[in-house]
Amino acid sequence: MATDRALFIGRFQPFHHGHQKVVERLLELYDEVIIAIGSAESSFTEDNPFSAGERVDMVRAAFTPSQLSRLVIIPVRDVNDHSLWVSHLKSYVPSFRVVHSNNPLVTELFDRAGVKVVPIEYVDRGLKEGKLIRELMAEGKDEWKRHVPEGCADFIESIKGAERLREMKRKR
Amino acid sequence: MATDRALFIGRFQPFHHGHQKVVERLLELYDEVIIAIGSAESSFTEDNPFSAGERVDMVRAAFTPSQLSRLVIIPVRDVNDHSLWVSHLKSYVPSFRVVHSNNPLVTELFDRAGVKVVPIEYVDRGLKEGKLIRELMAEGKDEWKRHVPEGCADFIESIKGAERLREMKRKR
Amino acid sequence: MATDRALFIGRFQPFHHGHQKVVERLLELYDEVIIAIGSAESSFTEDNPFSAGERVDMVRAAFTPSQLSRLVIIPVRDVNDHSLWVSHLKSYVPSFRVVHSNNPLVTELFDRAGVKVVPIEYVDRGLKEGKLIRELMAEGKDEWKRHVPEGCADFIESIKGAERLREMKRKR
Amino acid sequence: MATDRALFIGRFQPFHHGHQKVVERLLELYDEVIIAIGSAESSFTEDNPFSAGERVDMVRAAFTPSQLSRLVIIPVRDVNDHSLWVSHLKSYVPSFRVVHSNNPLVTELFDRAGVKVVPIEYVDRGLKEGKLIRELMAEGKDEWKRHVPEGCADFIESIKGAERLREMKRKR
Amino acid sequence: MATDRALFIGRFQPFHHGHQKVVERLLELYDEVIIAIGSAESSFTEDNPFSAGERVDMVRAAFTPSQLSRLVIIPVRDVNDHSLWVSHLKSYVPSFRVVHSNNPLVTELFDRAGVKVVPIEYVDRGLKEGKLIRELMAEGKDEWKRHVPEGCADFIESIKGAERLREMKRKR
Amino acid sequence: MATDRALFIGRFQPFHHGHQKVVERLLELYDEVIIAIGSAESSFTEDNPFSAGERVDMVRAAFTPSQLSRLVIIPVRDVNDHSLWVSHLKSYVPSFRVVHSNNPLVTELFDRAGVKVVPIEYVDRGLKEGKLIRELMAEGKDEWKRHVPEGCADFIESIKGAERLREMKRKR
Repeated sequence: MATDRALFIGRFQPFHHGHQKVVERLLELYDEVIIAIGSAESSFTEDNPFSAGERVDMVRAAFTPSQLSRLVIIPVRDVNDHSLWVSHLKSYVPSFRVVHSNNPLVTELFDRAGVKVVPIEYVDRGLKEGKLIRELMAEGKDEWKRHVPEGCADFIESIKGAERLREMKRKR
Repeated sequence: MATDRALFIGRFQPFHHGHQKVVERLLELYDEVIIAIGSAESSFTEDNPFSAGERVDMVRAAFTPSQLSRLVIIPVRDVNDHSLWVSHLKSYVPSFRVVHSNNPLVTELFDRAGVKVVPIEYVDRGLKEGKLIRELMAEGKDEWKRHVPEGCADFIESIKGAERLREMKRKR
Repeated sequence: MATDRALFIGRFQPFHHGHQKVVERLLELYDEVIIAIGSAESSFTEDNPFSAGERVDMVRAAFTPSQLSRLVIIPVRDVNDHSLWVSHLKSYVPSFRVVHSNNPLVTELFDRAGVKVVPIEYVDRGLKEGKLIRELMAEGKDEWKRHVPEGCADFIESIKGAERLREMKRKR
Repeated sequence: MATDRALFIGRFQPFHHGHQKVVERLLELYDEVIIAIGSAESSFTEDNPFSAGERVDMVRAAFTPSQLSRLVIIPVRDVNDHSLWVSHLKSYVPSFRVVHSNNPLVTELFDRAGVKVVPIEYVDRGLKEGKLIRELMAEGKDEWKRHVPEGCADFIESIKGAERLREMKRKR
Repeated sequence: MATDRALFIGRFQPFHHGHQKVVERLLELYDEVIIAIGSAESSFTEDNPFSAGERVDMVRAAFTPSQLSRLVIIPVRDVNDHSLWVSHLKSYVPSFRVVHSNNPLVTELFDRAGVKVVPIEYVDRGLKEGKLIRELMAEGKDEWKRHVPEGCADFIESIKGAERLREMKRKR
Repeated sequence: MATDRALFIGRFQPFHHGHQKVVERLLELYDEVIIAIGSAESSFTEDNPFSAGERVDMVRAAFTPSQLSRLVIIPVRDVNDHSLWVSHLKSYVPSFRVVHSNNPLVTELFDRAGVKVVPIEYVDRGLKEGKLIRELMAEGKDEWKRHVPEGCADFIESIKGAERLREMKRKR
């Protein structure tokens, strides 16, 4: 029988507690969870400070080996043409049954492609949380660590992630 | 302490016993193994019949949950400009210490970027094995199943992978 | 009630009698016929000597005003990733019900997207005919004119199309 | 003798009465009118809600068969490099003698390429009209139908075009 | 012994006295100076009015033959993915030892690639000066000529560069 | 008065005596010579072993300071669409009056754009010479040095260029 998978899409700049809760909830409901890391080609900008590879590292740092064995983490770059986006995404990730997203464009595009989309409570807050965390980092406030899983915070510190944002802001 | 990772690159069209042996050996030597699925944007051609997402499914089908928790499977598309290739790859995968590859261009490019490259015994044979398996599929010979892990074979059958190649050849 | 349209895809290098017959037959069966001009971005090569715009001119030259009013001629460039091709094409042409094609890849990709594909008798011969016509042009033999509609031949002469191929061959 | 053609460029998001009047006027002055649908690769955004194919459908719905036989409707995607734009456009459309446009950049680029450009009275107002129509759609006001030809309005309703904009706005 | 080169990066829209002073200073310190013309693919916009080729002409007009023999002027287009930028640039220019730049992103990216970056005093003011000059041009004030080397001013006049900006602004 | 410039296009893999003679002859006839380095984005392949930047280094090594002050060396990447090629090239190089080339496609495309093209005697032999030199390098024969200017040979040795080709061939 085919593995029952849910797809969860985000930019994860950075991966935070809100994202973690969504993934943990989805792991209770499905065999496996695909975490698609969007805007994978972007990095070193104020909105997208971390590379796709760094974001893979962050996500992995937030889960146990047993959880990791059921997570499929896939970076997906943007395509300019929205009408290609669903086909593009589907060609990069293994098969899935349901998409969990609150993004209106994502919802519209999957709807039209006949894929079931389920809204998420946490993410709307989460989106704002991502921006908040990046601002705290840029302002040099250690408070950002409270918003992300401990393993993520350690990883971000090891690559001097907060300094990267602070530097970019300072020199702007 | 940082996770000690090896990088293993291939197109995995399809993932076969030779690939599996390499990964199993690397899992003995490193904390985690990154499997970079090259030419990720290619599918439905005779050389690259399977999409990146299908290849992720194939690779996962060849390993146990405990092995999967230590595998990082990342599709990476080609970039036309070889001088960008190492930077491109590094931005899509988490950090790693060693590359295992027999491809001369891969070796040259990583060498120049100061990354340690170690040759693999299995792969050279493996490259030819991939071509052989695709030819067996295209000729409608069930023998191809002997060359790939059982889980892969089941997955390929579930998507009628061999028929895809047979069809392409027949109509050519 | 929606217009009932068939889609006919080709490179039309150049548009010849075989293509014309297919289009005329389809005009009997459907309200309108979409002629998708593939590899639209290619020109000035031996396989693709004519630009998309020139090919639009050629196709139009082969039909009467009354037929033209029911033809939808759309240049469509290639996308490298085959898994995006159907979405790409669909975003450039108006809605259609059936595809007429003999190309195995086109057939496979539309099949998978749930679009009905009907084979064409003329085209297989037509594909070879395109190559033959280009060779006649390159060899400087006026015979090529017998293979294309009169209006096309006139247009091709007005842009010195045969000379273009002859020149490319001579200097190769 | 060569067909005397004018080129008319727009994004047609959506095609409205202002556009229709321009085309009808040009049909009086020239043998044929080329309608180049700009930003063809964009869709499902607030500025570019409709795909190129949908816009082809819209334009066709606004004219009679006899007019359609003299219209050449061609989607043209953007190229980032403005210095390539005229060459790019010319390679996608059949030959033409005059461009009708009010866009300063379009005018400058064609001027430099030695192509005659004639300003249009309607379009300046038309550009604003496009934005106005999209806003009416997004606000759920049926008034938008008064601004577009009846056939266009019917087509847009058949694809739930106004809902698309409303949905995008609501969830923003 | 290898030529000792410094790399100086800018968009040079247009090349002005501030840029000239930096280059003259660098010519005192190094064997040769590489002038990388960034955003090479952009032209005919308000921020990037001049093509890469025109900017090459401008730069050359500001120096003597003896200086020119020690300048390496190379247009470099943008790449969207910042993590590829250093590799991209390095593949287009000859080898160099030091980068002179005040741009925080440029600095960060070269730092990470292990290339020495030295800040410049003139450029920060220079960046603002570029914008100021373009505004003076757009407003039709001849004052802009005072900000650029005489040879540049002559060249810009020969291509009616100020008119280009004025025209774009007027019609906006 | 405008500088009278000739344009000379090649891939220069590597720059050899044939190229050098052409450039020296053109320097006698024109104020300045633009050397456009084609296929600039290609490197580390058997046909295009050297990066654009390395080729800039090679070309510069073949001339005296006084000659260098009259050379404009510009890397130009390929564009897939031939109909864009002349516009693309012109946007990257300063203005020129004449093109010197033997390539039939280059000739055809510039002809159509109204640019004067003059054939070169040396280059036809030169094209074959490039291939010959790369083969000598790949076979490990020092004889290749006889075919390139002394400065080029020194530069190629400093980057172990011949080894690069030998390595690629050996491991193929």
